[in-house]
Amino acid sequence: MTALTEVGKGAAMVTIDLNADVGESFGRWRLGDDEGTLGVVTSANVACGFHAGDPATLVRTCRYAVDRGVAIGAQVGYRDLAGFGRRFIDVSPEDLAADVLYQLGALDGIARSVGGRVAYVKPHGALYNAVVHHEEQAAAVVGAVRAYAATPLPVVGLPGSVVLSRASSAGLPVVREGFADRAYAADGTLVPRSVPGAVLADPTVVADRAVRMVTAGTVTAISGESVAVEADSLCVHGDSPGAVGLAAAVRAALESAGVTVAAFAP
Amino acid sequence: MTALTEVGKGAAMVTIDLNADVGESFGRWRLGDDEGTLGVVTSANVACGFHAGDPATLVRTCRYAVDRGVAIGAQVGYRDLAGFGRRFIDVSPEDLAADVLYQLGALDGIARSVGGRVAYVKPHGALYNAVVHHEEQAAAVVGAVRAYAATPLPVVGLPGSVVLSRASSAGLPVVREGFADRAYAADGTLVPRSVPGAVLADPTVVADRAVRMVTAGTVTAISGESVAVEADSLCVHGDSPGAVGLAAAVRAALESAGVTVAAFAP
Amino acid sequence: MTALTEVGKGAAMVTIDLNADVGESFGRWRLGDDEGTLGVVTSANVACGFHAGDPATLVRTCRYAVDRGVAIGAQVGYRDLAGFGRRFIDVSPEDLAADVLYQLGALDGIARSVGGRVAYVKPHGALYNAVVHHEEQAAAVVGAVRAYAATPLPVVGLPGSVVLSRASSAGLPVVREGFADRAYAADGTLVPRSVPGAVLADPTVVADRAVRMVTAGTVTAISGESVAVEADSLCVHGDSPGAVGLAAAVRAALESAGVTVAAFAP
Amino acid sequence: MTALTEVGKGAAMVTIDLNADVGESFGRWRLGDDEGTLGVVTSANVACGFHAGDPATLVRTCRYAVDRGVAIGAQVGYRDLAGFGRRFIDVSPEDLAADVLYQLGALDGIARSVGGRVAYVKPHGALYNAVVHHEEQAAAVVGAVRAYAATPLPVVGLPGSVVLSRASSAGLPVVREGFADRAYAADGTLVPRSVPGAVLADPTVVADRAVRMVTAGTVTAISGESVAVEADSLCVHGDSPGAVGLAAAVRAALESAGVTVAAFAP
Repeated sequence: MTALTEVGKGAAMVTIDLNADVGESFGRWRLGDDEGTLGVVTSANVACGFHAGDPATLVRTCRYAVDRGVAIGAQVGYRDLAGFGRRFIDVSPEDLAADVLYQLGALDGIARSVGGRVAYVKPHGALYNAVVHHEEQAAAVVGAVRAYAATPLPVVGLPGSVVLSRASSAGLPVVREGFADRAYAADGTLVPRSVPGAVLADPTVVADRAVRMVTAGTVTAISGESVAVEADSLCVHGDSPGAVGLAAAVRAALESAGVTVAAFAP
Repeated sequence: MTALTEVGKGAAMVTIDLNADVGESFGRWRLGDDEGTLGVVTSANVACGFHAGDPATLVRTCRYAVDRGVAIGAQVGYRDLAGFGRRFIDVSPEDLAADVLYQLGALDGIARSVGGRVAYVKPHGALYNAVVHHEEQAAAVVGAVRAYAATPLPVVGLPGSVVLSRASSAGLPVVREGFADRAYAADGTLVPRSVPGAVLADPTVVADRAVRMVTAGTVTAISGESVAVEADSLCVHGDSPGAVGLAAAVRAALESAGVTVAAFAP
Repeated sequence: MTALTEVGKGAAMVTIDLNADVGESFGRWRLGDDEGTLGVVTSANVACGFHAGDPATLVRTCRYAVDRGVAIGAQVGYRDLAGFGRRFIDVSPEDLAADVLYQLGALDGIARSVGGRVAYVKPHGALYNAVVHHEEQAAAVVGAVRAYAATPLPVVGLPGSVVLSRASSAGLPVVREGFADRAYAADGTLVPRSVPGAVLADPTVVADRAVRMVTAGTVTAISGESVAVEADSLCVHGDSPGAVGLAAAVRAALESAGVTVAAFAP
Repeated sequence: MTALTEVGKGAAMVTIDLNADVGESFGRWRLGDDEGTLGVVTSANVACGFHAGDPATLVRTCRYAVDRGVAIGAQVGYRDLAGFGRRFIDVSPEDLAADVLYQLGALDGIARSVGGRVAYVKPHGALYNAVVHHEEQAAAVVGAVRAYAATPLPVVGLPGSVVLSRASSAGLPVVREGFADRAYAADGTLVPRSVPGAVLADPTVVADRAVRMVTAGTVTAISGESVAVEADSLCVHGDSPGAVGLAAAVRAALESAGVTVAAFAP
């Protein structure tokens, strides 16, 4: 999970993972350009049916991912189709752990049926935000991941979050996520989406930030100072044609800068 | 999957499996006496969340089953909580296959987290009835089971059904199911529940039928004649205290008759 | 519900309704150009939440419809978000009637909260097709509509369908629906979508068929002969920008031909 | 909504409403003794489908209520069948208001189809608790009730809650609820269920508390002192045979004490 690997004497090869959400259609409703996105990223956070992703969509998405050699991650979420998993739900740890296990197994079964497997876990939406600080829910997620697989699955989350800290204590590999298209505050946290300027859309700007985040480990905060950001994976988006283009620009810039773009999961 | 095993010279040891539906609670709603039922049967058809069975219920049910050495089967069904999977849905083969895969993986993940695994598949309710004759849906179920696991999982169904025939052709073990508490017609099919006398409740009568079905391979049809019935597993019920008592009476009578009651799944 | 009104001496004013499905988004998933569609049609078949349409979408859709003076219809469907109401479900008449009542009341409450009301009922998708011939489900739908409102609500359906016949017998106004963009067989039934040529997309062709259907009461069948079609409302679509353009072409052609485009519902 | 009515000279006739939750079955899953409960209470909080209550159950429940002259209230809740509406969901005010409108209309349509109508609104479970203090969600509920009906519907809630204060400001009648079977703290709030002694089960004790609450306006707090409690309606339960017996004991004791048990809603 380390982004820096010593190569030869003194030189260092920098590697980064690019992840994006896919498989978020549901029945008649289509969302995102999964095929386009899977042509750019190295890790695919596939929905698991609770916030999005009907089973036939998941089969198709996993097949695309396997065909393109993209690592499949389980994007587990709250049971909330109407809210797309974006609303905090005060679910009990026991129920949440069971919900995570259920989603993990469902997606893994589908992935295996097309020759792949679930290689990591990334909580979705409101659950992602909750486990940054919610001790019980973070413990429930980690407990479920731990109970699921013989081989510990990596957990993707925000650097400094409770869920990564607990995952690490439980012996799970942790993957720290960075956001090239989001503004950071001076303390290294993300600026809330509701604040003007919180989301960046200019491909050149976003690509430059990605390169600097990966090669220098820093980002310019919204207040102007340089902030340290440690990221093992950068989150990009694929829910619009423009988003896929932005993701491709980020990848191209990273590769031009000599960075190896590759999945963290084997 | 054969009920007769040669033992010694000329003697035969008769073995039968008893299966029942469990794990059919959902959230606040409790259904059935799962602990009582799992004390009687050898195979547990565990709901998979589409017609019943919230994940926390499935965890608890699988734990009980593992503790008591009862084989866990995936009772896959239509996506229809409001109808409890008892209403035929004209779902496309592609969607149905994906739905079955999803449910299989979800339950298997939960079963494995508590030290068990899904050992067989039994379609539920309206899907069970549909795949007796519905070629496309039967093929979809079989295709999903085939795609799911490295080791082929047995499929439980009605003798003579399309699903068993297709499962057999696909290389899956098949388990023929008999019903000691249901009336049979002279042609060996089940009398529909809507016909008076279709369901039997007297423990002595049901237990006697079970013993004769297993040891002689026959049952007395509603019209009076003796009919051949080949069964590898007998279905009993656990959705009421009375039902568990009836199941226990069936098991006791079988054991008194020298029949070994054991799961077909290893 | 009659399309012909005598005006002056000998002249006749022809009136037709244009209907389209709207309100079919669900949470994060957007479907169709509701605002564009509501600028063209005179009757809006608004989803009621069982096959599509989260409540906030329904509030917005009803508000648009009221603002533009478009009649609001309840597009009741099977309880099947994953299948978008397009899969036949063998639901019991008692459950179906209750499901229809529930959906009718839900949409009407929302419509009234923004100054409108439900003015008619049109079954959706697989339910629309089922009640063409399914006696029990047709009776359930009609019974629910009859039980719902003090003032009988019109029912939209296929000419010759069981649901229209039963609605008429029950004292409900009936609205016969025509399809300008669908091929008809020589017997006046619709050519199934699976047959090549079943769906027409050329705006000129579709608009011409609409005009002839309304002014002459005929359509050219796929086999070449002229077939009589009696329609009180023409169905158009709004689920893509192209679809809205096609609907607008139909409306323009009708108005150029002197046809009054107006809602059947007061 | 006032519990005291001057009668004759100096005498006062005391009136109280008894409410209970009903209609909480869902499809195959049965919950509570609705017929028994409706023989005791004067107001029925009927589930509206989002946390419980399939439409056929709601039709049956409303029919019972109408037959017995029990007022029908809409027990609106979060969209959460798996959690039975008992988990806080951080739903946006816009979505919550639409969800409440949808549920209100759905139940009202069903109630009217059997000769009744929704006469009041009582939020359910976690929503009930949230709107005690959550300003935005309380405002959303009140806004939806206000938008729904020409005649303002009363809102049932905890005395001192934000939802009752906002309802009152919006011109809606408010109904303060008391709990004879729950322990109160010295400050007049309810002792959380997790505290030992929080729920009382002895029929004599509960009935005595009910009488004193209604006739004297006081209750003995868990710490021993007498606390003032103003209640227009007492909540009883019907989710078990024992619960119905307890409710009947409360009603009998109230009537023996000369209290008139009657619905607050006309």
